[in-house]
Amino acid sequence: MSNKAQGKPKKTAIRVTREADFPKWYQEVIKEADMAENSGVRGCMVIKPWGFGIWENLQRRLDQRIRETGHQNCYFPLFIPLELIEKEAAHVEGFAKEMAVVTHHRLVAKDGKLVPDGELESPLVVRPTSETMIGESFAKWVRSYRDLPVMINQWANVVRWEMRPRLFLRTSEFLWQEGHTAHATETEAREETATMLEEYRALAEDWLAVPVIPGEKSESERFPGAVETHTIEAMMQDGKALQAGTSHYLGQNFAHAADIKFQDKDGGESFCHTTSWGVSTRMIGAVIMTHGDDDGLRVPPAIAPHQIIILPIARDDKAAARVLPAADELAAKLNNNVAFGNVVRAYVDKREVNAGEKRWSWIKKGAPIIVELGPRDLDQGTVMVTKRTDIYGKESQETDAFVANVVEQLESIQKTLFEEAKAYRDARIRTDITNFNDFKAYFATDDLTSSGFVRAYWGESPESEELLKEIAVTVRCLPYDQPAEPGTCVITGNPATKVAIFAKSY
Amino acid sequence: MSNKAQGKPKKTAIRVTREADFPKWYQEVIKEADMAENSGVRGCMVIKPWGFGIWENLQRRLDQRIRETGHQNCYFPLFIPLELIEKEAAHVEGFAKEMAVVTHHRLVAKDGKLVPDGELESPLVVRPTSETMIGESFAKWVRSYRDLPVMINQWANVVRWEMRPRLFLRTSEFLWQEGHTAHATETEAREETATMLEEYRALAEDWLAVPVIPGEKSESERFPGAVETHTIEAMMQDGKALQAGTSHYLGQNFAHAADIKFQDKDGGESFCHTTSWGVSTRMIGAVIMTHGDDDGLRVPPAIAPHQIIILPIARDDKAAARVLPAADELAAKLNNNVAFGNVVRAYVDKREVNAGEKRWSWIKKGAPIIVELGPRDLDQGTVMVTKRTDIYGKESQETDAFVANVVEQLESIQKTLFEEAKAYRDARIRTDITNFNDFKAYFATDDLTSSGFVRAYWGESPESEELLKEIAVTVRCLPYDQPAEPGTCVITGNPATKVAIFAKSY
Repeated sequence: MSNKAQGKPKKTAIRVTREADFPKWYQEVIKEADMAENSGVRGCMVIKPWGFGIWENLQRRLDQRIRETGHQNCYFPLFIPLELIEKEAAHVEGFAKEMAVVTHHRLVAKDGKLVPDGELESPLVVRPTSETMIGESFAKWVRSYRDLPVMINQWANVVRWEMRPRLFLRTSEFLWQEGHTAHATETEAREETATMLEEYRALAEDWLAVPVIPGEKSESERFPGAVETHTIEAMMQDGKALQAGTSHYLGQNFAHAADIKFQDKDGGESFCHTTSWGVSTRMIGAVIMTHGDDDGLRVPPAIAPHQIIILPIARDDKAAARVLPAADELAAKLNNNVAFGNVVRAYVDKREVNAGEKRWSWIKKGAPIIVELGPRDLDQGTVMVTKRTDIYGKESQETDAFVANVVEQLESIQKTLFEEAKAYRDARIRTDITNFNDFKAYFATDDLTSSGFVRAYWGESPESEELLKEIAVTVRCLPYDQPAEPGTCVITGNPATKVAIFAKSY
Repeated sequence: MSNKAQGKPKKTAIRVTREADFPKWYQEVIKEADMAENSGVRGCMVIKPWGFGIWENLQRRLDQRIRETGHQNCYFPLFIPLELIEKEAAHVEGFAKEMAVVTHHRLVAKDGKLVPDGELESPLVVRPTSETMIGESFAKWVRSYRDLPVMINQWANVVRWEMRPRLFLRTSEFLWQEGHTAHATETEAREETATMLEEYRALAEDWLAVPVIPGEKSESERFPGAVETHTIEAMMQDGKALQAGTSHYLGQNFAHAADIKFQDKDGGESFCHTTSWGVSTRMIGAVIMTHGDDDGLRVPPAIAPHQIIILPIARDDKAAARVLPAADELAAKLNNNVAFGNVVRAYVDKREVNAGEKRWSWIKKGAPIIVELGPRDLDQGTVMVTKRTDIYGKESQETDAFVANVVEQLESIQKTLFEEAKAYRDARIRTDITNFNDFKAYFATDDLTSSGFVRAYWGESPESEELLKEIAVTVRCLPYDQPAEPGTCVITGNPATKVAIFAKSY
C-alpha cells in the first residue's frame, strides 16, 4: 500500500493486512493498539487511554485555536424539546431518523422487573447537534448590533442512532466540538465559515498529518438547514474519502426559526446570519486509516499520547538497579524540551513483561520513537532508537545527541508521515477521466493499489447525482482550487464550469 | 454577613442582599455575573462563558492531579442498558427515581406531529453515574494480578432527574469527573479512596479557596452500593452545608455484580476491590455561596477566567489612540508572569460601553483585579487598581511596581478569600451544644448571622437519624479529626465515641 511496503517482511503484527481485508485490518489495529472497543450498548464505544489520549491532544490544539480566533466555550443541554427541533423543517427532516428519544424520567419495579415510569409530557431528543438549542439562547442574548457577533463553542457528546456502527467512524454516540456564531452581516458570517474551515484544514494537515482537500459540498450533501456546507475531505488508504470536518453558513434559516434578531445602528430590525462548524472523534478513524500499516498504528508525534517510549532492558536485579534510574533520568531530560508547542512526552515502560512483547506492543500502538536502554548502552553512552516511520532498522545514537536532537527528530517524523500520506493520495487522484464509461469502470474495482478520487468537470445537475448513487459514488466537494476554463460534465457530457472531487466514501 | 459588611454603603450591585433573601440573592448573582441560565428543558442549564471558564480552570487543575496520581482518562457510553444497572441492588434502588429513560430511536410524522418511533427492544438509561458500565469493561480488562490496579477517570455529563432544580446546585444534567479504580487488595482500594478525597480537599481549599471538613458519611448518607463514602463538606454563607466532593470505597459489591475477578500470584481467583470518586459543576455553586457578596461574585484568582481586567479610559479618539495600545502592552506584560502554575490571565475590555457600567460589570462578575488606565495615568506612569476583595477603595500604583508584584497580589487575594471564608465558617461551628433541646433550638432559626454547623458527639443510631429528619438536619460527616475521649450523643443522650458534624444542607 504505502511506498515502503515493498520488500517488507511477510510476517506482520496485524493478523489481517490492509490488502487482504481493509475493514477487518482497521478493526484489528484498533484492538491491537488498544484504542477503543464496543460496549454493551449497540453503537456506543468505550474509548481507552491510547485512543482518548490522541483525542485530548487534538482537543488541546483545536481548543487553543478556537480561543485565539475569538470564540468562548459554553455548555448547552444534552436534551432538546421536540417543539424546538421541529422549528427548522429541513433540519428536523435530516435528523429525525436517527434521534434517541427520552420519554420517561424514572424506573419502577413491576412484576419483579424495572420498567420506565413517569412519562414526560413531551418527549426530549438527545442532541444530534445543537443549532436549535443554541439558537434559543442566541435569541435571548442578542438585542442590538452591540451584542454581535456572538461566537461560542462547546465540547460535547452527541447521539445519532447508527444502524451499522463502526468504531470512531460511525458510532451512535460520539464526541465533538460544535462552534456556533451569530453575525450582523452575511459577509461576516461567510468569513467566519471560511476561517473555521481553514482551521480544520490546518488541524488535519499540521497536527494529524492528514492531507485534505477543502471545498464546498454539493446541494444534496449539505448539512440539513444550511445554505452552504464547506468540508475537508481526506483519502483513506483504501482510496475512499472521509469527510473530516465541516463548516456551515446557515444564512438566516436558523435565525428565522429561532427568532434571532437585532436592532441595527439605524434602529431597524434584522435577522442574524449564523454559522456552525464541527469536528469529531471520527478524526481518530482518519488518523488510523491514513497512517496505519500492517504492523499497526503510526501516530503523528504532535498527537501521540507518548511521543517517546523508553524501554529499560535488564535481565536481572543488578542490571535493573542501574537501568531504571537511568531511564527515568533520560525521560526527564527529554521532557525538558518543547515540541509542537507543548512539553515533550516521554514515558518509561516499567511493566514486568518481556522486552520483545513490550517493544511490539508500542509498535502496534504506533509510538513515534522507541528507545531501548540496557547496561551495554549505558556503558557506551548510547541508546538504541527505533522510529515508527521505519521500524525495520534500529539505530544506535549517542545519548546526548539523541536528547539534543529529539525535537528535530519528532518534527521530521511528523513531516515524513504527512508527505508519505500526501504522495499516496496525490498518486491516486485521477484527473484524466472525461466520460462516464471510463468513470464507471474506474469505480467498479476495489483494487487498493489503484482506487481513489476522480477530479473532473461536473455540471451540478440533480440527474447526475442520481446516476452516481447507482454506483455508490458521491461528489465529495467542489474544491476551492478550480480551473479557469470551462469543460464538459464527466457524467452527462453537458457543459460544466466547475470541477468536483468524486469518490466512494465512509 | 462577612466581616467587612459593617459600614458598607447601602446601595448594592445585587438587588437582593444575602440577608434579605439568600436563595434569591444566589440566583441574582448568577444572572448579574452572567454565569449560567435556565434552558427550555426543565432542570437543564446553559453554562455561559464566565461560569464555564471557572469550570475549565477547576478542570485543568484537577485533571493534572488525576494524572499525577496515576490515572488515565477514558470515555464510556452515555447510555446504560437496564439489565446492567439492575445488577447491583442497592445501586439501582438509589437511582431508579431519577433516571432519564430512552425508549425510541427515531421520530416520525403522524397527523402533522412528530412522535417517537422505533421502540428499543430494551430501554436505555442515561447514565446517572457509570459504576455499572465501567464495571463491565473492568471485568473484560482484568484477568490477572498483573493487570491491576486499573485506574481510570472520565470527564462527562450525567443525568439525575431533578424535581426542584437550582442552577449549579441541583440540575437534571450536570458535568463532572468520575474516577473508577480496581485493586487487588482492600488496603490498596482504601488508600486510593483516601488519596482522592485528599485531592478534593486540596482542590477546594487551595484552588477554590473554599474551606472544607473532610470525613466519612454516616450509613444513611452513603453512595448507593458503597461500603464507605468519604466527603468534603463546605459551609455556605447561610450556614448550610454543601457536599462538595465524594470518594467511595465500594468493597467487592460492584466486583461481584459485574464479575470483576483476577488470578492472583498463587493461581487463586479473587474479586477486585473497587473505588469511585467525583466532583461536579456543583463546585461552582459552592464558590458563589462561599465568596459572593452583595455586589456579586468574587472569584478566587486561581480559577478566575480573567484574573485582571484592564479598562482603557478614553473620552475621545485621540485619547483612545494612546490608551488602547498601552492597555494591550500592559496585558502582554502581565501575561508574561506565572501564577498558580499557569500563565497570568489579563484581559483588555474594549467594549463600547461607558466606563462606570463596564467597571460594575466586572465587579459583579468578581474579577480579582480591575485596572483603569487613562491618559493621566499614562502621563504619571501609574495605574488605578481595584481589588475585588475590597472594592470600595481604588489605589494608584506605579505601573512597573504593579506588574512586578502582580503574582504576589493575586496570591494575596487568593489567601484573603480563603482566610475570610475560614474565619466565617469557624465562627459558625458550635461545639458547645450537648443536648437535643438546645440542638433543636439552634436549628429552629434561619438567622444568617448565627446559623451554621454543630459539632457534637453522636451515637450513630438509626433512631437518632430519624429524629434529625423531623427537623431537616442531617449528619454531614464523621470528621477525621476526632476527640480521644468518649462522650454522650447530643440527640439520644446515650454513650457515644465519635463526634459528627450536623447541619441543614443543600
